[in-house]
Amino acid sequence: MSHRTWGGRFQEGPDALAARFNASLPFDRALWREDLWQNRVQAEMLHRIGLLSEEEFHALLAALEEIEREILEGRFPWREELEDVHMNLEARLVELAGPAGAKIHTARSRNDQVATDLRLHLRRRLEEILEDLLAFRRALVREAERHLEPLYVLPGYTHLQRAQPVLLSHWFLAYYEMATRDEGRLQDAKRRLNESPLGAAALAGTGFPIDRDYTARALGFDRPMRNSLDAVASRDFALEVLSALNIAQLNLSRLAEELVLYSTEEFGFVEVPDAFATGSSIMPQKKNPDILELIRAKAGRVLGALVGLSTVVKGLPLAYNKDLQEDKEPLLDALATYQDSLRLLTALLPGLRWNRERMWRAAEEGFALATELADFLAQRGLPFREAHHVVGRLVRRLLEEGRRLKDLTLEELQAHHPLFSQEALPLLRLETAIHARASYGGTAPGAVRERVLEAKKEVGLD
Amino acid sequence: MSHRTWGGRFQEGPDALAARFNASLPFDRALWREDLWQNRVQAEMLHRIGLLSEEEFHALLAALEEIEREILEGRFPWREELEDVHMNLEARLVELAGPAGAKIHTARSRNDQVATDLRLHLRRRLEEILEDLLAFRRALVREAERHLEPLYVLPGYTHLQRAQPVLLSHWFLAYYEMATRDEGRLQDAKRRLNESPLGAAALAGTGFPIDRDYTARALGFDRPMRNSLDAVASRDFALEVLSALNIAQLNLSRLAEELVLYSTEEFGFVEVPDAFATGSSIMPQKKNPDILELIRAKAGRVLGALVGLSTVVKGLPLAYNKDLQEDKEPLLDALATYQDSLRLLTALLPGLRWNRERMWRAAEEGFALATELADFLAQRGLPFREAHHVVGRLVRRLLEEGRRLKDLTLEELQAHHPLFSQEALPLLRLETAIHARASYGGTAPGAVRERVLEAKKEVGLD
Amino acid sequence: MSHRTWGGRFQEGPDALAARFNASLPFDRALWREDLWQNRVQAEMLHRIGLLSEEEFHALLAALEEIEREILEGRFPWREELEDVHMNLEARLVELAGPAGAKIHTARSRNDQVATDLRLHLRRRLEEILEDLLAFRRALVREAERHLEPLYVLPGYTHLQRAQPVLLSHWFLAYYEMATRDEGRLQDAKRRLNESPLGAAALAGTGFPIDRDYTARALGFDRPMRNSLDAVASRDFALEVLSALNIAQLNLSRLAEELVLYSTEEFGFVEVPDAFATGSSIMPQKKNPDILELIRAKAGRVLGALVGLSTVVKGLPLAYNKDLQEDKEPLLDALATYQDSLRLLTALLPGLRWNRERMWRAAEEGFALATELADFLAQRGLPFREAHHVVGRLVRRLLEEGRRLKDLTLEELQAHHPLFSQEALPLLRLETAIHARASYGGTAPGAVRERVLEAKKEVGLD
Amino acid sequence: MSHRTWGGRFQEGPDALAARFNASLPFDRALWREDLWQNRVQAEMLHRIGLLSEEEFHALLAALEEIEREILEGRFPWREELEDVHMNLEARLVELAGPAGAKIHTARSRNDQVATDLRLHLRRRLEEILEDLLAFRRALVREAERHLEPLYVLPGYTHLQRAQPVLLSHWFLAYYEMATRDEGRLQDAKRRLNESPLGAAALAGTGFPIDRDYTARALGFDRPMRNSLDAVASRDFALEVLSALNIAQLNLSRLAEELVLYSTEEFGFVEVPDAFATGSSIMPQKKNPDILELIRAKAGRVLGALVGLSTVVKGLPLAYNKDLQEDKEPLLDALATYQDSLRLLTALLPGLRWNRERMWRAAEEGFALATELADFLAQRGLPFREAHHVVGRLVRRLLEEGRRLKDLTLEELQAHHPLFSQEALPLLRLETAIHARASYGGTAPGAVRERVLEAKKEVGLD
Repeated sequence: MSHRTWGGRFQEGPDALAARFNASLPFDRALWREDLWQNRVQAEMLHRIGLLSEEEFHALLAALEEIEREILEGRFPWREELEDVHMNLEARLVELAGPAGAKIHTARSRNDQVATDLRLHLRRRLEEILEDLLAFRRALVREAERHLEPLYVLPGYTHLQRAQPVLLSHWFLAYYEMATRDEGRLQDAKRRLNESPLGAAALAGTGFPIDRDYTARALGFDRPMRNSLDAVASRDFALEVLSALNIAQLNLSRLAEELVLYSTEEFGFVEVPDAFATGSSIMPQKKNPDILELIRAKAGRVLGALVGLSTVVKGLPLAYNKDLQEDKEPLLDALATYQDSLRLLTALLPGLRWNRERMWRAAEEGFALATELADFLAQRGLPFREAHHVVGRLVRRLLEEGRRLKDLTLEELQAHHPLFSQEALPLLRLETAIHARASYGGTAPGAVRERVLEAKKEVGLD
Repeated sequence: MSHRTWGGRFQEGPDALAARFNASLPFDRALWREDLWQNRVQAEMLHRIGLLSEEEFHALLAALEEIEREILEGRFPWREELEDVHMNLEARLVELAGPAGAKIHTARSRNDQVATDLRLHLRRRLEEILEDLLAFRRALVREAERHLEPLYVLPGYTHLQRAQPVLLSHWFLAYYEMATRDEGRLQDAKRRLNESPLGAAALAGTGFPIDRDYTARALGFDRPMRNSLDAVASRDFALEVLSALNIAQLNLSRLAEELVLYSTEEFGFVEVPDAFATGSSIMPQKKNPDILELIRAKAGRVLGALVGLSTVVKGLPLAYNKDLQEDKEPLLDALATYQDSLRLLTALLPGLRWNRERMWRAAEEGFALATELADFLAQRGLPFREAHHVVGRLVRRLLEEGRRLKDLTLEELQAHHPLFSQEALPLLRLETAIHARASYGGTAPGAVRERVLEAKKEVGLD
Repeated sequence: MSHRTWGGRFQEGPDALAARFNASLPFDRALWREDLWQNRVQAEMLHRIGLLSEEEFHALLAALEEIEREILEGRFPWREELEDVHMNLEARLVELAGPAGAKIHTARSRNDQVATDLRLHLRRRLEEILEDLLAFRRALVREAERHLEPLYVLPGYTHLQRAQPVLLSHWFLAYYEMATRDEGRLQDAKRRLNESPLGAAALAGTGFPIDRDYTARALGFDRPMRNSLDAVASRDFALEVLSALNIAQLNLSRLAEELVLYSTEEFGFVEVPDAFATGSSIMPQKKNPDILELIRAKAGRVLGALVGLSTVVKGLPLAYNKDLQEDKEPLLDALATYQDSLRLLTALLPGLRWNRERMWRAAEEGFALATELADFLAQRGLPFREAHHVVGRLVRRLLEEGRRLKDLTLEELQAHHPLFSQEALPLLRLETAIHARASYGGTAPGAVRERVLEAKKEVGLD
Repeated sequence: MSHRTWGGRFQEGPDALAARFNASLPFDRALWREDLWQNRVQAEMLHRIGLLSEEEFHALLAALEEIEREILEGRFPWREELEDVHMNLEARLVELAGPAGAKIHTARSRNDQVATDLRLHLRRRLEEILEDLLAFRRALVREAERHLEPLYVLPGYTHLQRAQPVLLSHWFLAYYEMATRDEGRLQDAKRRLNESPLGAAALAGTGFPIDRDYTARALGFDRPMRNSLDAVASRDFALEVLSALNIAQLNLSRLAEELVLYSTEEFGFVEVPDAFATGSSIMPQKKNPDILELIRAKAGRVLGALVGLSTVVKGLPLAYNKDLQEDKEPLLDALATYQDSLRLLTALLPGLRWNRERMWRAAEEGFALATELADFLAQRGLPFREAHHVVGRLVRRLLEEGRRLKDLTLEELQAHHPLFSQEALPLLRLETAIHARASYGGTAPGAVRERVLEAKKEVGLD
């Protein structure tokens, strides 16, 4: 019992289940690096303000180094009964550094300690993820560039019905744009959380003459937080990270869904590389896009994490409540989920084998080019809605006759509307249609090429 | 590579991250008992229909027994690269039983195998939980009975404002009612999921002359499922379990919240037993109801699990998709969370120390008995709304004068309304008020005692 | 101000925004029928126990009838400042029936009144929905029967890859099974909520000699609720309804998704009837399955409603809190959403035009029949996994050569494995494969026909 | 039928339910201002590039003005069968402006039109909300300043147990900090969404020589979006707004919860102004903090909205799908909910009557000052953990004896530890304790005063 920090008051020990229920060591162990760093900085600060002697300070530093070695070498004596990572490291500190170890917690509470570690950890993980996201955006840009020459064309869909042909490069860049905004949201979250709660103590600040500016700066924070209650009680920074991850994973789920669709036998646009697919135990011919399905599904997981923590925080009075211990698992899980998803997609994209011929045929057949005819009439002065009705009737006729747009002759066109002329016929060719949509942001090859060049600059590929 | 079931088709190995992302072994290992049982029953059935020789059958049984021993003794050679629990057990079966091992998968696919194991596992876990829930309901009934003599009275709240006094026993029984409905929902979920998918094979059934009735019966299922697509593709049973757990955990969160409130210094109604509280690292006098706070918070976790799986299933085409692998973690986590919460509360309830005097005083002071006066007037013929206004004015006057209800004299009462008479005065005593609410389901001691007796019968305590 | 029920105490009026924020009339007006019914039954009971004179009773009945007429004829003077439907009806009752009107609220509080109305309303809406659900299940059965002769075959999918051919009838029956379980969940929810809170009063019961059995019976409830705190504070019944609706809407979202996919030009299996599709303003050839897309999307809406109310209830102390007013909007919205979705699908299903030829070709081409070959070898004694590897190699070869399964000759088969014989060749025909899967619950026409007959009985179509 | 834009192709009319299910007019009517503005700018641009003659352009402008008047004066002929606000305005435009009206849709699709209106609308609503948020932050700062002289002290809580005294001003500033971060998130969301989709047309851009820079600038957007697929298919901007609102409403739910607690009879710290509370129909003495309860509850509503739209977007292929129509209702509802909550709190805060004496007593009594003693020992060199144990034993003794901290004599203190001296005694006075916590961000009056001055500058109150 002596290792329990609240041992002084209690007459009986918590029973085993309660101890396990209470314990956070299984998941907060992930914060050990941050806790060591914080302890080091805390020791420096206490030394500077005279609360640790030279000797105590050096004993602490030596002990912290030893602990780091023990952990890295897998020989740190983790003890579940010590509840969390902080108590484990502190108990060991006392063992190694003697009385000085017991002083490290001066002017600090587990409340500000936990909040500090969590912010440090999130910052580090977000930095990693931002690098992975840059790699993903580069992969998207590279694929966009790679499929410009020769042009890869696929049907653009609305309502999952073929609508208008688009460049595969254009499609890649759509996901590039989304990923770029995801990056912005994660950057904003990282920036906003980069403040130091350290020194808020339990909830009210402290009477010790601590130097919060020093510890904030030494830990790479932009500034110390300005309100001690807020510092220990708030988890909006965690919710913001989860919110940004939720949106980002939803964007990945859309990409995954499209690739799952495009790799069906029915679409047949793309083949997923073997390394990211699996077979079936009973159907030897199957090639299942497991990884993509999981990335799609894991949007549920990240959303669930966000809902979980939101519900925890709802109506929670200030300052620290044990409820907040439930912040770490959803966060760590969501971070890992998104990071894995990003890395897998980044590895998978270059291995996709696009079936140019099949995509082209799909973009060409059917009536995907009917809009061209309507635009043609509109450009010659027919009000847009009328042009639309004319072409609608034309298409209905063709459907009834089982014919296709490109079977139309000039005479037939003119029978439907006198404004049709010779110049309308090339519109029924895919190349013409694609090159026509040259408005800024449109799918014409020239417009897309410009976007690719811009994007390359943005991700440092030029 | 040879251990990969889909090895025949691929030219390259999945890379490490993809393998880890794909793997379910870390969490579906929990299903090993069910998988062994299923294999045993499957072997019996294959033997009965002549697809396994006597010799093969016995080899399989022996191997299955050996595997069970290996797992129980912690020496089973789990191999992460085999992805899931099913492939691990099957691979070992082949090693131990030779060619017969490879036959166990005849007329079965991983799709129906997984669905079968999951249903068996949920059934078993729900049975355990239903026992725990019975114990919890018993604890509630016992506490209700224990606090009838002498009466414990506390203020009943609406809007967290003291409204009318109620018996502590009555309050316990309110949670008993909720828990009883929770039990009903979990029973319904268990009943509805108790159908056998086994034999649905990949999705379409099989050409082998299997006996699905036999396997269903042998595994304790009520019947084989009637549609093979449904059998492998549906997860509504899992969502139903999560839904019932969500509601049940929400109910526990309300109980936990009330106990957290009641154990504040401000309410001071109850003291949480030491074993379920912790101290603070900086404030030695604190007794923090950690376990209750966690139970409250974990409503977020269970809701998050439900949202996660709901989102996974949304818009998912038939039949099996890898997305469905995401069903196990939220389920296992939610089951464990609710079960732990139940067990902890069951252990905690008898240890609560209720402060009878403080509760009584709280129920008595203020204006909690004002309704009695309004009812008095109403019973004497004054329209209810008018009676309400009369008493409202009376209370306002007292508030302004800083006096209390029980300070009122008959004269003052009559000055407010002539219908007031001598009989009104006892109404301002707590005992009278409590005994008055004798309607069925009301808080009068007699009514509550009847409910306690009924409840004791229901939970087998009589 | 005189219309405010709490007018007696306050010195200033709530400002306009607070009044609007507080008001529930815009949505609880939907409960007017239930509130009138409850008032009628309450009046009968008060009359029977002598709290209302004959004259008062008849005045009330007449006034209630007049109010009903006013509402039905659109001339009821709804007053927003009266906050909710209950106060509106009561205020009018007082205007029409005089002092008797003010007595209707005797021994009742808005807390039990609201809970009673809500349960009555849910019961009625669930009854309607259960009828709609029966109609939907009938439509599924009819479609299953209609496509048995001649057989409609489509590829069954796993991972959205063609796996094994299945009957379209079998596919319809899969959704029939899901809908049948949805029906069970909604029935269970209806049954469990059918208890009467009326008479619980504010939270503690009442001292008036009310007859709760009478009012419960008269309102069609199974019994009065046994605990007054529970009666006014619990919303698990509402959460259970939302949970059942969530699962049911998720099931519909899967059906909708499949129909969206099957109606793409790429799949081309089905055409959505014009009445349930729309065109595009710019692409005249498009036929967008809007209704199906919305049904799919609305799974988000219902899940959102469930999350909303769950979060409201989390950690809410007993008994009534204003928070609970947030129960009605999500419920009413979710009920309407599911009911509309059901009705639309029921109307849409018979109008689907299935392209038998195209489905057949899809089921036949590719390697959907490879499993048959593996099963053939397994049935001849080759261990299942080995059979799988043999066929895997065969398929890989064919893929490399750009050939199809049905191009295989006996010699080629035997070159891959000597167990292949003449009898293997017909397996590569779709009809053979479909008829082979005759296990219980499998897709063979005979098995499916039996299931259709069973289902017809269940839904009263025989 | 002629009014249906897709009339050309269909042979039957959608039935009534489908039409209603499909229609968005009931909620997207809120976008009418934005749609008119967009049409005006679109007309200008089409005129500038020569697609509209001077005459057509002026006819359009006049018609748009007339429509605006009609709407403002309540005489616009809204027609439900026209589905949405865009078709309603366009149809009227054609009626009023003749053929020119039909040209407004040139080079535009409903897809980019809807996305443009929605972004404009969100921007406007966010601007309003940011003003309301500024007012709320000002109110918090004013309250913080107002309670500095004389000092208002209340117990700071952890685990809802009294922990250490804090200034009420400090408590207000904690919410100020949270609100400031909420402001940052909403600003970031507004900035990120301020890009123009207009000109993306259906999904691929257009062949008309449109000037997207002009329309973007004229509508106040920072730039045209760079990818047409992204422009019509993405809703991450909507999810980001919902995410920021979710976090912000959660923060308000915490404030509301604390005020609900503090206004109970048990805490008794504060009285809610009458205008924001209501009475009870049966308990005349009650003052229910309805508005605060609703603000707390509505965190569920906003979270539900976020979950709803997240689920809609999950796995949705590009580009536009009808599913996206489900974006508006959750957004509009969440915006209104948060805005109302903000305004109500801003109005409510100055009306709160804080009971200084009661708060002071609560902060003083019990053992809230025990930490001071532990710190005292620590400052004199006793290792922190040891000091903690010493004081823990001291508190346990006092609890057993039913005494209070301030009853301690110097002798008793020294009996517990020799390091205690005369200087320890004043620590047991509230003023000393409060002034002691003078670390940056701590609760000492001087520190808080500095923060108030900073905050006043930030919100323009100096």
